[in-house]
Amino acid sequence: MPSYIEPRVLKGFRDFLPPAEIVRRSLTEKIEAGFRSFGFVPIDTPALEYADILLGKGGGETEKQIYRFTDNGGRDVALRFDLTVPFARFTALHALELTFPFKRYHIGKVWRGENTQRGRYREFTQCDFDIIGSDSAAADFEILLLIRSTLRNLGIDITIHVNHRGIFNRFLNHIGQSNNSCEILRAVDKLSKVGKDETLTSLSELAGEAHAQKILEFIGAKGSFNEVLNKITELAGGACPESERLSVINQYMRDICVNEAADTSIDPFVLDPSITRGLDYYTGVVFETFLNDMPDIGSICSGGRYDNLAGLYSKNNSISGVGSSIGLDRLLAALEALDKLPSSGSCKAAIACIDAEKSGQYQVLADKLRQKGIQCEVFVDACGEKNLVKQFQFAEKKGLKWVIIPDENPLSGTVTLRDLAARKNIDLSIGELIDFCGKAIP
Amino acid sequence: MPSYIEPRVLKGFRDFLPPAEIVRRSLTEKIEAGFRSFGFVPIDTPALEYADILLGKGGGETEKQIYRFTDNGGRDVALRFDLTVPFARFTALHALELTFPFKRYHIGKVWRGENTQRGRYREFTQCDFDIIGSDSAAADFEILLLIRSTLRNLGIDITIHVNHRGIFNRFLNHIGQSNNSCEILRAVDKLSKVGKDETLTSLSELAGEAHAQKILEFIGAKGSFNEVLNKITELAGGACPESERLSVINQYMRDICVNEAADTSIDPFVLDPSITRGLDYYTGVVFETFLNDMPDIGSICSGGRYDNLAGLYSKNNSISGVGSSIGLDRLLAALEALDKLPSSGSCKAAIACIDAEKSGQYQVLADKLRQKGIQCEVFVDACGEKNLVKQFQFAEKKGLKWVIIPDENPLSGTVTLRDLAARKNIDLSIGELIDFCGKAIP
Repeated sequence: MPSYIEPRVLKGFRDFLPPAEIVRRSLTEKIEAGFRSFGFVPIDTPALEYADILLGKGGGETEKQIYRFTDNGGRDVALRFDLTVPFARFTALHALELTFPFKRYHIGKVWRGENTQRGRYREFTQCDFDIIGSDSAAADFEILLLIRSTLRNLGIDITIHVNHRGIFNRFLNHIGQSNNSCEILRAVDKLSKVGKDETLTSLSELAGEAHAQKILEFIGAKGSFNEVLNKITELAGGACPESERLSVINQYMRDICVNEAADTSIDPFVLDPSITRGLDYYTGVVFETFLNDMPDIGSICSGGRYDNLAGLYSKNNSISGVGSSIGLDRLLAALEALDKLPSSGSCKAAIACIDAEKSGQYQVLADKLRQKGIQCEVFVDACGEKNLVKQFQFAEKKGLKWVIIPDENPLSGTVTLRDLAARKNIDLSIGELIDFCGKAIP
Repeated sequence: MPSYIEPRVLKGFRDFLPPAEIVRRSLTEKIEAGFRSFGFVPIDTPALEYADILLGKGGGETEKQIYRFTDNGGRDVALRFDLTVPFARFTALHALELTFPFKRYHIGKVWRGENTQRGRYREFTQCDFDIIGSDSAAADFEILLLIRSTLRNLGIDITIHVNHRGIFNRFLNHIGQSNNSCEILRAVDKLSKVGKDETLTSLSELAGEAHAQKILEFIGAKGSFNEVLNKITELAGGACPESERLSVINQYMRDICVNEAADTSIDPFVLDPSITRGLDYYTGVVFETFLNDMPDIGSICSGGRYDNLAGLYSKNNSISGVGSSIGLDRLLAALEALDKLPSSGSCKAAIACIDAEKSGQYQVLADKLRQKGIQCEVFVDACGEKNLVKQFQFAEKKGLKWVIIPDENPLSGTVTLRDLAARKNIDLSIGELIDFCGKAIP
């Protein structure tokens, strides 16, 4: 047995100390409460799955990044690298146990051996939510609304950029470029990264300059949702089921906006034909979500509609759906930069340990406060009256609000309540203490 | 690319469908709320660590069970198999950033390639909580109290069996058997599994029959906490710091019990000299927790005091502590058998989709209910009035309480509220609907 091992974590992996973990858990709780209020229900799947299941649809990039190994039973296994593939497998396996349309969310860690130099982590948390088993515009719209509602609950202003992959495909077909669609999609997807000029060059090489200009005209269309919709519908050769779908979704959005007292001059929904989600498996609406105060951080919540979620794992069922995913780490970074991290919002107190023999009674007193919803810690190491200052400092470090200093009768005497921020002491009876603290709960 | 892959999960791994996952999350939330109310704070650590760190203290059994492999960067890595070893590494790495005594909890998944025939899972959840950096009896006691408080919050009656490893060691020393202590501990630990006769045989082989009888007398001592304490103190050769520690803890327990209005005829704390926690690294108090209504399921929460948590990863710091771990899966199985699973306790409604074009307005209506704390789903697929029965059935399957049937003016008209359990309809204005649902919140 070694006598000393250097403590360290793997590159791209992180410990979360209490201040960070408290924020992460508060954030997850708020997001989850939003999902639940819309009737979405949680699922969970294993971290480890058969590698062939996870890699089924995977291309070269996934294969390079996945944590894959042979287990002690000789099985070829891997850690999940997203929550979508496990959900597809889950849906195929449990189709008969589920009720469709099925609205589920899944919050969990995923693992990718990404190049950490790009500032990415190898272990990170995703929050996925989907409606499967419904082709309706109402389902598309509900996902968009849930994004908006969830992020607004966090106190941030967002704009959701929406598009429809089908209209872009019709447009390419209309200008005779459907054979090049993969390459063109890839070039268009890079627009925000490389700029207009470079995109024009790439597109010209693929489709000739005239078509390249036309493509840029399509993806660059600006104006209100309806104006852009009319423009791209025209460029794509006229009204079609896909333009009709966007029109219906837009009508739902208007119904929401006119019923809000809030300032509707900033439209949270924008039709943006440059959003294509690259080579993802989306077939219908697609969307990305940007922070109004920090658009450069990129989309914090993206998704779209797909045709056949579980096709690879199912011989009979064709289940379409629409869904989205919040990248918790990017969202946290943004909230921190915007000074909008959620606080735990609780009142916190500690009972100083004046006489260790009375620790049982201190716990009884603490419990009276806990029952009123106040987090109350009991300090477990005794100090003399002289060392109270140390206990105050300790409590301040821990972010507490009050230190309670009991007298020799912790349950019937009076206490001194130290307000750490105000640096003031108040003498109270036990009953007064409980009333006082109870009233301070936010 | 394959065209079909059989959907399946690895042996010993599980999917959690919504009903099970909702219960798991409710249970975790309740446990966490208990931890937080005592001032314990959460941490998190990576699922994957360097194998040498995780295996540092591990014996043969751990090495056989651990999921270990070489990652794409050639590192020898493994999935964590408990939350204790990562906590030791965490403490050594972050000692300077922490404030001691440090009270933390950690709820997370761990992975062990155990033999699934013993009914064990290979992926399961642990809830660990510890106080480190304090040697006090008050810290020992607080862990015991937190176990009791957390499990009582779940509505179950428990008995915590407490012992002190040091007294048993003194006793063995007193009868001249300290050389055999490992083997004797192992034999004693099997008592509840193999019975008294077989234990006596094993002990006789190790220490001779006279000593074996003495050992059984020690571990079989019965009576009140104080009676047992007096008995084993005497057998161990008289008062010592360890018996004094148990005496202080017992005094704290009495302080708690006398201040409770509840029936104190059942003492939740028992001194049980047969509890030794086998060959674990504990050096002070040890304890196991049993359900009064289902003792045979075994301990649902065990732990104890240890000397030097981070010693293997730290050259300078010697940090002692006391902690415990709840096995979430065993606890869930017990709660289910006792019919005490937590319910989500929320009111759930759905708005029927009568006219798909009004889906935006349905969402506005739903939002009015959500703002009152009512989970409200909007059905996304239209049905004619005739098919309302199908929507009722669908809602019942999902465990909803109400279906709201809007008229042609979803936001200004009247609605029909269908009470699914009562099979009754009530006509209400929108304002009345909101009042009515709001009042039904538990």
